[in-house]
Amino acid sequence: MQNLHNVLYAQSGGVTSVINASAFGVIRAALSHKSVKSVYVARNGIQGVLDENLLDLSVEDSTEIEKIAYTPGAIFGSCRTKIKEKQQLDRIFEVFAAHDIGYFFYNGGNDSMHTIFQVSKHARETGYPLKAIGIPKTVDNDLLGTDHCPGFGSAAKFTALGMLEAIRDLRSMYISSTRVFILESMGRHAGWLAASGALASINGEQGPDIILFPEVRFDPEKFSHRLEDILSQQGFCSIVAAEGLKDKTGEVLSASSELDLFGNLKLGKVGLTIEKLVKKNFNLGIHVSLPDYLQRSSRHISSFTDWQEAIEVGAMGVHYALEEGKTGVMVSIQRIMDRPYLKTYVAKPLDGIAAAVRYVPDEYLSPDGFYVSDKFFSYARPLMEGEAPNLFLNGIPQHARLHFVEVPKRCSQES
Amino acid sequence: MQNLHNVLYAQSGGVTSVINASAFGVIRAALSHKSVKSVYVARNGIQGVLDENLLDLSVEDSTEIEKIAYTPGAIFGSCRTKIKEKQQLDRIFEVFAAHDIGYFFYNGGNDSMHTIFQVSKHARETGYPLKAIGIPKTVDNDLLGTDHCPGFGSAAKFTALGMLEAIRDLRSMYISSTRVFILESMGRHAGWLAASGALASINGEQGPDIILFPEVRFDPEKFSHRLEDILSQQGFCSIVAAEGLKDKTGEVLSASSELDLFGNLKLGKVGLTIEKLVKKNFNLGIHVSLPDYLQRSSRHISSFTDWQEAIEVGAMGVHYALEEGKTGVMVSIQRIMDRPYLKTYVAKPLDGIAAAVRYVPDEYLSPDGFYVSDKFFSYARPLMEGEAPNLFLNGIPQHARLHFVEVPKRCSQES
Repeated sequence: MQNLHNVLYAQSGGVTSVINASAFGVIRAALSHKSVKSVYVARNGIQGVLDENLLDLSVEDSTEIEKIAYTPGAIFGSCRTKIKEKQQLDRIFEVFAAHDIGYFFYNGGNDSMHTIFQVSKHARETGYPLKAIGIPKTVDNDLLGTDHCPGFGSAAKFTALGMLEAIRDLRSMYISSTRVFILESMGRHAGWLAASGALASINGEQGPDIILFPEVRFDPEKFSHRLEDILSQQGFCSIVAAEGLKDKTGEVLSASSELDLFGNLKLGKVGLTIEKLVKKNFNLGIHVSLPDYLQRSSRHISSFTDWQEAIEVGAMGVHYALEEGKTGVMVSIQRIMDRPYLKTYVAKPLDGIAAAVRYVPDEYLSPDGFYVSDKFFSYARPLMEGEAPNLFLNGIPQHARLHFVEVPKRCSQES
Repeated sequence: MQNLHNVLYAQSGGVTSVINASAFGVIRAALSHKSVKSVYVARNGIQGVLDENLLDLSVEDSTEIEKIAYTPGAIFGSCRTKIKEKQQLDRIFEVFAAHDIGYFFYNGGNDSMHTIFQVSKHARETGYPLKAIGIPKTVDNDLLGTDHCPGFGSAAKFTALGMLEAIRDLRSMYISSTRVFILESMGRHAGWLAASGALASINGEQGPDIILFPEVRFDPEKFSHRLEDILSQQGFCSIVAAEGLKDKTGEVLSASSELDLFGNLKLGKVGLTIEKLVKKNFNLGIHVSLPDYLQRSSRHISSFTDWQEAIEVGAMGVHYALEEGKTGVMVSIQRIMDRPYLKTYVAKPLDGIAAAVRYVPDEYLSPDGFYVSDKFFSYARPLMEGEAPNLFLNGIPQHARLHFVEVPKRCSQES
């Protein structure tokens, strides 16, 4: 158990447009660190560890490694695998030991922070000298223990821009055509991304008229009254609806009996449920946008702040593990002030973070629950500032293309 | 009938991300022309002429006029009003005469070109000395008489980027999660925008696996076999489906009896119909993206080529009318060569253009009808090249804000 000089990185959970920027941050910092021998990556998150499916990053071309930071998705593959048995933990450490892994960086959201917590705990209990660090990511921004989460700022920017531009479209045509526009936003549990639609208005432009949060139980009557008011005042109405919107009983809206005309539509089509309701009560043209993957993968319009922080949380993770000897912590962003926006990084213990959800607090919502407060603007606006660079060629951004050189297997392959 | 020194411009039909760039092209060229007295705009297209709802552009600040070129939607409002009666034409010319309108520029697609054709014909028949020019726009690219149509290149770029980024997302997760991704594209009659998804691959990146065109009758069995092949080969499949996809009998797919589970969903939700079909035949995770307005209004990622051409067709319209005395023509883009891309502008007579649809020709499709040919790439790739500039402030693009100064009414307001 000496000379554990190798670094292992892996990606987990739903992707963001900047999770690869964090990959770059870890890899670049690890590759240039004097006490690191090899930098490995597990394919498809912890599943790749269980399968001993490892890649050797040391052999990749440095210009392609740089391009990782410009590439959406999870370039090494992600997973939703959870660690449920001690056997799995034993297998993970068998693979770690076989490849001299002394440092493990796991990049993900709530569930992934729970995984890295389990791994770090097991290392401590068994005496394996592992430094295990959580690198946060989620577009949903619902991770505890950090001011905000890398991935959120970019998806927020996509949402704000989408609303900004779609509202201009709606205003063009409402007199003779469509009068209601609904954009469905990601956010299963928390309304952070739905709230971000409001950021369309930060320069005095028109923002959405109604925002529907998972945190605010949906009342069809109250909603219809609000819609009616807005339509009579300005003739059109734009709405952002979070996919995780819930009815009065707390059930996800698209599965509720009152609106079961789309009974077989799964969560993530709440925009159509709202459309149905509006159609029932109003005789007018409606358009619905369900950006789906486009919301979380639009690297071409990532926030510079978010992109830079995504790289930095990766590099800081390496610093905490290799310079400060920390383990069982997540790299956390701590805000110093809103304007000018200043932040620093701290290492937060993983217990207490994992498997809990950070909701949009009441103070970020308007009193009627249909919009955000000024406090939300102060919180969210710096996170989508700046435009991350792109490597455009022939009208299309260039992304990384790696050799994906596999590390020879050393363990039994029974699992 | 002398001294008809005023210019009138109006916007019509569904918007594009660069129709305002054409507005800017007309307005800037007209404002700086020595023989123009005032530059007016009709609100909401020809409807604003009928209503004598005119704006005086001469009083707007020149920096805000420049920002029009950076603004999505139709800043002066659009309409779908058609001219069906001679009475309407009489009314139009009553308003023209009352405001000394000698030049009329109408910016739109198929129906709008028919309107300007009617107007120019009426002028000739009645001896009113009007120069009437059609300025083309449509994201659908289905307008005859021009190599391509301003608005298409930008929506094509959005579609290509959307697929490029979403495919990276899909590839990240397919082993443990979603295996089919469907992006629904605009295109009621023609598959130009659906085809553009293929442009994701121009730099050697992975493009979509299947494209479903309105020009190719949808065969559920053939589609399912193709999907099965792709899934068995690479484990995942990405699909672009045009909203106007038709079944074997030529009926729009989402209304067909075979797939009527979404019977009350209007055209424009074909992505959900395909999802339903895939679910019926395959047991796997599917994601569907319906960008809707985002596809045609994403000015933040407009093609530079498209943006520049949109400005130029506007300015060329003014040139044709004021310098060459032309009327009853549309500004048409004529391609000289694909690479390097060179084009010129010509004035095309409006009769023969209006009210016909330009479909994707067979030679632009692959033999099996599920993809595009190399010829399509040669045709389409220059149109989405370059990135149009944006005026970002605080993470959000700035758009024009005008005073919208109304021209005092001079006609009876009975109509």
